[in-house]
Amino acid sequence: MKVRTRLTHCAVEAAMQVVTGKWKVHILWALSPRPRRFGELRRLLPGVSEKVLIDQLRELMTDEIVHRDSQPGPVPHVEYSLTARGAALNEALRPLGAWGREHL
Amino acid sequence: MKVRTRLTHCAVEAAMQVVTGKWKVHILWALSPRPRRFGELRRLLPGVSEKVLIDQLRELMTDEIVHRDSQPGPVPHVEYSLTARGAALNEALRPLGAWGREHL
Repeated sequence: MKVRTRLTHCAVEAAMQVVTGKWKVHILWALSPRPRRFGELRRLLPGVSEKVLIDQLRELMTDEIVHRDSQPGPVPHVEYSLTARGAALNEALRPLGAWGREHL
Repeated sequence: MKVRTRLTHCAVEAAMQVVTGKWKVHILWALSPRPRRFGELRRLLPGVSEKVLIDQLRELMTDEIVHRDSQPGPVPHVEYSLTARGAALNEALRPLGAWGREHL
């Protein structure tokens, strides 16, 4: 069996670890069009608690999937956005979403 | 936000449920080239216990990802293979594997 195919499946498993967590796929979805403030994210993810959203954002930042940016100005605020790596992950998940829509 | 994109991410989550489980991605890998007997699968997945492999194959069969076939003949035996749905899932996971290889 080709080593490359085995590597792919180990890499699949590793990639899935990055998005395992009840809200992570939905956070990726919410951030895909544009950066969001924390409050916006909470409104887009009905049912998520503040603590869980903070924890999952922190994990996604540790994995360099999400970037946190403090915006100065008259009304200073924080924005969350996808890193290039995060945007690439979102794209890589698209075929899995298409499979899920077709088969589940 | 487009409903279609939200559906995709819900479908991603649902699809991930199908392959969540320590050995499922590796079972998909092992069955991708051709059908396998149980013993072959165990040899290809060092570390998996008999019980865990049986349980995860059963779950994959319930989800119609894997098919179990009793082969008659001089030496009757059982073979496991990917269904069309399983093979399509394997393909859908490929971009995620490529992302994992590049970013992790």
